[in-house]
Amino acid sequence: MDPDAVAKAFVEHYYSTFDANRAGLANLYQEGSMLTFEGQKIQGSQSIVAKLTSLPFQQCKHNITTVDYQPSGSGGMLVFVSGNLQLAGEQHALKFSQMFHLMPTPQGSFYVLNDIFRLNYA
Amino acid sequence: MDPDAVAKAFVEHYYSTFDANRAGLANLYQEGSMLTFEGQKIQGSQSIVAKLTSLPFQQCKHNITTVDYQPSGSGGMLVFVSGNLQLAGEQHALKFSQMFHLMPTPQGSFYVLNDIFRLNYA
Repeated sequence: MDPDAVAKAFVEHYYSTFDANRAGLANLYQEGSMLTFEGQKIQGSQSIVAKLTSLPFQQCKHNITTVDYQPSGSGGMLVFVSGNLQLAGEQHALKFSQMFHLMPTPQGSFYVLNDIFRLNYA
Repeated sequence: MDPDAVAKAFVEHYYSTFDANRAGLANLYQEGSMLTFEGQKIQGSQSIVAKLTSLPFQQCKHNITTVDYQPSGSGGMLVFVSGNLQLAGEQHALKFSQMFHLMPTPQGSFYVLNDIFRLNYA
């Protein structure tokens, strides 16, 4: 599988799902998945999606600026993203950085083992 | 080993070495190590240090804002850093984000398998 295509397809799928229907992200995570969101540690698909769906904004739009990726040495792939997050009704977009560690599933797909998100305050 | 202590000690060591003597970073990398620096892919300790020592500034100071970490599922640790990079003679600091994948060595230490660096332009 072409890692460049995997990284780009994942990023497109992740953020378009986030912006349209956050609950739809559940099947990208598994029980061992970890999210660190602005320093808060959350584990497991159900808890992660509960966090994402309870964020204090309804509509948002991620605009991606950069996508970098590397093999992680265990069949997985590290994907590093930077971009802007536009919240509905807010004048200024928020800059963010996020990294994912994608691991292969037996079905030939990937799930998110590690996810770390940070807003880059000015 | 306490992962919180490992992550903080690594970050302190990495950036203080970078700011004082970039060539001293060589022993944190191995032949299979990967650096993606502002989208440019570099592999191997020697090439990585050649890149870092050839950056077009002499003196700099990293100020760290956040450090997050997670186990990577293969005995390694992911460390995600955000902060500011102050270049000598420049008025404004540059914001950056960087992620490292630390892997254990047989000697009980860690080396950097993956390193992705991005400046967060305004």
